[in-house]
Amino acid sequence: MLTSKEYSDYINGAIKSLNLPGGKLAGLYSPISYALATGGKRLRPMLTLMTCEAFGHPVEEALPMALGIEIFHNFTLLHDDVMDNSDIRRGRPSVMAKYGVNTAILSGDTMLSLATGLMLKAPAATMPAVMECFNSTAIEVYEGQQLDIDFENRNDVSLSEYLEMIRLKTSVLLGCAAKIGAIIAGASDNDADLLYRYAECLGLAFQIQDDMLDVYGNPEFGKPIGGDILNDKKTFLMLSAMSSPKAAEMRAAMAQSDKSSKIKAVTEVYDALNMRQLCSEAVERYSLEAISAIEKANIPEENKVCFRKLAYSLSERQV
Amino acid sequence: MLTSKEYSDYINGAIKSLNLPGGKLAGLYSPISYALATGGKRLRPMLTLMTCEAFGHPVEEALPMALGIEIFHNFTLLHDDVMDNSDIRRGRPSVMAKYGVNTAILSGDTMLSLATGLMLKAPAATMPAVMECFNSTAIEVYEGQQLDIDFENRNDVSLSEYLEMIRLKTSVLLGCAAKIGAIIAGASDNDADLLYRYAECLGLAFQIQDDMLDVYGNPEFGKPIGGDILNDKKTFLMLSAMSSPKAAEMRAAMAQSDKSSKIKAVTEVYDALNMRQLCSEAVERYSLEAISAIEKANIPEENKVCFRKLAYSLSERQV
Repeated sequence: MLTSKEYSDYINGAIKSLNLPGGKLAGLYSPISYALATGGKRLRPMLTLMTCEAFGHPVEEALPMALGIEIFHNFTLLHDDVMDNSDIRRGRPSVMAKYGVNTAILSGDTMLSLATGLMLKAPAATMPAVMECFNSTAIEVYEGQQLDIDFENRNDVSLSEYLEMIRLKTSVLLGCAAKIGAIIAGASDNDADLLYRYAECLGLAFQIQDDMLDVYGNPEFGKPIGGDILNDKKTFLMLSAMSSPKAAEMRAAMAQSDKSSKIKAVTEVYDALNMRQLCSEAVERYSLEAISAIEKANIPEENKVCFRKLAYSLSERQV
Repeated sequence: MLTSKEYSDYINGAIKSLNLPGGKLAGLYSPISYALATGGKRLRPMLTLMTCEAFGHPVEEALPMALGIEIFHNFTLLHDDVMDNSDIRRGRPSVMAKYGVNTAILSGDTMLSLATGLMLKAPAATMPAVMECFNSTAIEVYEGQQLDIDFENRNDVSLSEYLEMIRLKTSVLLGCAAKIGAIIAGASDNDADLLYRYAECLGLAFQIQDDMLDVYGNPEFGKPIGGDILNDKKTFLMLSAMSSPKAAEMRAAMAQSDKSSKIKAVTEVYDALNMRQLCSEAVERYSLEAISAIEKANIPEENKVCFRKLAYSLSERQV
């Protein structure tokens, strides 16, 4: 098995060799190159490659699908940034900010079809299953995004609805990324589903960790503290507090108008509820479920190591 | 073979039975039902069904793909309306106007993936070819839309560039619709390509006829005359005039500020160039090329009738 760094170098190299059309069509394709060059962790394509390799299959065969998953993910970011009116993505101007809304829409559409085209390159025997997994996941991702939008205008979102929303919006794509690697490798349906569950749980752990770091992260790592609190964002912490006996105090804390008082008051409610601990427990629960899925899969013991490592690294991350 | 009316009733019935999710996901799917219910000519799915039937294959087998083509077409309309800021579509509020920009984007994305999902329902032996044709066509449609956007800010667009743009933006989807019906029916590659060429030429004829009707249409049929002229829209007529010896007069006519004087002056240049005749000749040339493709295809003589009829009806239409 390769290391994380080797996988991401491999993916970045493949992205550079994509050879998108230029010339008269540069208006459509340059924003795509720009979006893909911005990097990120390349977690999704890495999962596809890792899984393919874990089942003893040559990693090259999964590369087009790994790229397709990454391009799909970046397509959702282009459109999400339009919907959220976000000017910044990964510390640089978003495609919308740099090239305009219309380009973000049309180049985004193109990315979705480019991603589909890469899925069609799967070996003939596996292509229908790859396409089915990819396409049904795409629809789930849109459903998750719709629920997220709907939640903004609702005051009665339950924690379980929230977990279902983040599962759809972010986790299913991780599950799909891992499962496609397994399908390409010719794994059994059961093994492919175990890998899906592994990555899906990873996604849930990742998102809850993200919610926690907004409040309890180390500001030295660059991310400002309390952004979610100021935006009244529905998070694991907020919805847990709202369904606790301290709901009234939480509402009062959220009603504060001064920014730093609001962050302080909400954090005090969270502290009183032992929220940091609650989050850590939820993250650990999902990480353990991820690892338990890997233990059951028919992959050689030595290939399981990096899956465990990845699960721990995500749940222990500080940024 | 069915009649046009029978095909479109069949398609409308299938659209009504699509059974899209509601409940918590109504925010995503209701706009899709709304967009699909608005009708239109159903020309694209009809081509898929007609072609499948012409090769002696049961039309039912092509129905999911016909629906997929129609859903894809409507997805492009949702996103085009956002890009053009169009509030009206087929005489009703556009999805953007009725549900907002974000919904038009996200429900549009969903339609693209729903369309892809319907293509995946093609019989196993034909699915890879169907998907390949559908997906590469989708990318060409975006490229056409990008060229159309780019043309707005250019003063040196040639007639041949324009023809390539409308080929990509509108004709290739007609070609794809017809070709997919042929693929499903098990037609040879050569026959499938002939059907593609038939529908592609139909699309070109249709668009040039559209350009002509903006100037020479009968206002009693409802469409206001001169809309393209007032918007300085690059059309077959405008670009032909700009590459003629009357380019200077055309520029002067377009510079008029009073609306009715502008329409009158431009129309006079067109009249002097015998533009109505030029357009009719171009429409006829493409219609004949369409029909010539059909004559070469291996379909029973009696099944060719409705393809010829469709070609004539499009080029003779007044609206």
